[in-house]
Amino acid sequence: MIKARVTVTLKNGVLDPQGKAIEHALDGLGFAGVGSVRQGKVFDIEIDSADRARTEADLKAMCDRLLANTVIENYTVAID
Amino acid sequence: MIKARVTVTLKNGVLDPQGKAIEHALDGLGFAGVGSVRQGKVFDIEIDSADRARTEADLKAMCDRLLANTVIENYTVAID
Repeated sequence: MIKARVTVTLKNGVLDPQGKAIEHALDGLGFAGVGSVRQGKVFDIEIDSADRARTEADLKAMCDRLLANTVIENYTVAID
Repeated sequence: MIKARVTVTLKNGVLDPQGKAIEHALDGLGFAGVGSVRQGKVFDIEIDSADRARTEADLKAMCDRLLANTVIENYTVAID
């Protein structure tokens, strides 16, 4: 059993209205100095496998095909 | 300028229909051995401050008040 965490974030330059809304909400709550907020997604995935190299390749394929929109998003794969 | 990453994940035992849907979609795409998928959120926050301890306390307060629903979600704060 391999546990992995995939993190998907917006590329620089891609507008993030949700992040902007959070930024304003934090400001409204009185938190000073909040410069920028960017929101992304995280996927905790468990895979039945003992082959780490194969699993890492599989996880990257999952990102390319389903989890991330690589036109506007970056992803990182971290295996425990 | 302090850069921080806040990760918000569902607590164990909380149903995650979105994660389940992704699990099934990955299975449908032919990825074998996908055991479980849980989806969470990540926030990349920049804060104008030089006081790391104060900023960490602020970030935890942001999570408690806005970013996470602590009834069903856990959060972690990582400062660069």
